[in-house]
Amino acid sequence: MELNLQDARDEVVLSVEGVIDLAMKVLTQDGLSPAQAQPLARAMAWAERDDCRSHGLQRLPGCLDTMRHPRFNRNADPIPEEVSAAVTRIDADFGYSLLAFERGLEMLVPKAKAMGVSILAINNCFHSTALWPEIEAITAHGLAALIMNPSHSWVAPAGGTAPILGTNPIAFGWPRKDHPPYVFDFATSAAARAEIARHRKENKPIPVGWGVDSEGRPTTDPAAVLSGAMLTFGGHKGSALATMVELLAGPLIGGPTSLQSMAFDAGAKAAPCHAELVIAFNPALLGGETVEHNHAAAEALFAAFGVQGARLPSERRYRARQRSVTEGIRVDRELYDRILSLVAG
Amino acid sequence: MELNLQDARDEVVLSVEGVIDLAMKVLTQDGLSPAQAQPLARAMAWAERDDCRSHGLQRLPGCLDTMRHPRFNRNADPIPEEVSAAVTRIDADFGYSLLAFERGLEMLVPKAKAMGVSILAINNCFHSTALWPEIEAITAHGLAALIMNPSHSWVAPAGGTAPILGTNPIAFGWPRKDHPPYVFDFATSAAARAEIARHRKENKPIPVGWGVDSEGRPTTDPAAVLSGAMLTFGGHKGSALATMVELLAGPLIGGPTSLQSMAFDAGAKAAPCHAELVIAFNPALLGGETVEHNHAAAEALFAAFGVQGARLPSERRYRARQRSVTEGIRVDRELYDRILSLVAG
Repeated sequence: MELNLQDARDEVVLSVEGVIDLAMKVLTQDGLSPAQAQPLARAMAWAERDDCRSHGLQRLPGCLDTMRHPRFNRNADPIPEEVSAAVTRIDADFGYSLLAFERGLEMLVPKAKAMGVSILAINNCFHSTALWPEIEAITAHGLAALIMNPSHSWVAPAGGTAPILGTNPIAFGWPRKDHPPYVFDFATSAAARAEIARHRKENKPIPVGWGVDSEGRPTTDPAAVLSGAMLTFGGHKGSALATMVELLAGPLIGGPTSLQSMAFDAGAKAAPCHAELVIAFNPALLGGETVEHNHAAAEALFAAFGVQGARLPSERRYRARQRSVTEGIRVDRELYDRILSLVAG
Repeated sequence: MELNLQDARDEVVLSVEGVIDLAMKVLTQDGLSPAQAQPLARAMAWAERDDCRSHGLQRLPGCLDTMRHPRFNRNADPIPEEVSAAVTRIDADFGYSLLAFERGLEMLVPKAKAMGVSILAINNCFHSTALWPEIEAITAHGLAALIMNPSHSWVAPAGGTAPILGTNPIAFGWPRKDHPPYVFDFATSAAARAEIARHRKENKPIPVGWGVDSEGRPTTDPAAVLSGAMLTFGGHKGSALATMVELLAGPLIGGPTSLQSMAFDAGAKAAPCHAELVIAFNPALLGGETVEHNHAAAEALFAAFGVQGARLPSERRYRARQRSVTEGIRVDRELYDRILSLVAG
């Protein structure tokens, strides 16, 4: 118990609303419109709540850096447009991705319900958030969801050594009754770039397989990988999936590849500016006449994970969420002070 | 040269049409309707042509076994039905998947062209072919394609030891001008089940990571894995993707999970009977006003593979295809004789 009290002195306990307020102050003081800032602040608070710290408050300084990219638009006011009865496009107009997502969602959901499948294509968005908050926003409507986006060209393909692919996350969600959705959200790179940067900061070697140096040689030196090339997870299969993300969330919907995104960045070290592909599926329409039975089959599969002690992807996150409801969100005091100094500055 | 002549005595050289005729004879003699047999024989001939032998003529005996499943329907005559302007469903009526696919394709393509995205859900199909022939049938129309299906519950999830997932292939294609499409088609299991069976037959150990024995212990014994559990590729990420395939090509579209498919098989050792999810995307509609530019961006990405010596997924297959055009298809004489004996029998 004493250890906990000791720890507590180095932490600040905040509510979700407290994190949102803090992030809103930082973002709007830097000139981001409240409409842009709100969904971004909310996503950071949810990340803190779910103990996904790498997408929480520690992203704020990087967000301000991104807003310094010469093309970033602090007052972007995206309006969705109908492409077809099944497809919506929204030009994020070089603001952050989330406001565009939220506005596009209002067309995505009814189209998915009516058509069975629907696409939301977000163009020209700067991206610095996880995909799972968007996945959960879709599953909340009883829909399944698949989202992906390219990033910057940091990753070499299988059999290669030069970085031409992005870290290219794929996220998926399946709605469940009386239970948070089945959700996964992972990079197709072997590790997150931030994880490699953390190893460099802490002077720790990285595992073999995370990347190669600028000569294409396998290395455990994080600095060498950051200036060389990351590798994909899962060998040639992961490399193929990363390429699919490039194509589907890039050229398919009029967006850049990670190579083009890197060129657009032009050394600004901003978050990637690209397109995002969002697909929603309606199990109630696609499932035919056996919808209840279908959901039971999915639940039986999830149960078969549990009996053998295998975890579903978001379980740890949902447990942290529960804990945050009762105990609040513990934020490292040094981080908190650093964020406060951004507001004061 | 002499070695080649020697080899040639142990081989039969056939044309694509020759392989089709041979497979047609075997399948129809066993009572499969010509309408069902034709696309299956064609897919086998294409597999031989592309040097994908595991999906070629050597599948024929297994196909006959599958047709002995008490629910197999040799005269299935599937008719596609419209679910919405973006979705088609076709009940394969317990025949093979390919006739249903071909008939469904006739609705999938115009819907994808008009809507930008379209789904074909195939239900109640026995499945013993690769997915890339279907992918290529879609990309031939200038569309991108994503196809997946569950199988039998042979694969343990990450962190588990009991087989509850299928080998669950994912296949993807992107249309290219003046070049065969970008195509990949892989199992989300670490290895194909047939590959493990081949190791058992040849008394060879398998690599660590392909599976566990029935006690959940890592093993290099192929027999122990075949009676234990296979593992997914790529750790928890591959496991998550395999689960996504279960849900999207299962409960989402009213199909069984791999657990349910295994129960339906009831020891018959037939090919899996399940649903298949086919998604087609129209780059010409989704790509906005920059369609030519989009295709150029994809080509620039493919070129960036080439300059560093990294192969695109189907290159080997396309080279074999070229070779087959000029040299014919070399079929092992022992296999050829075994197939002939099926016709005579």
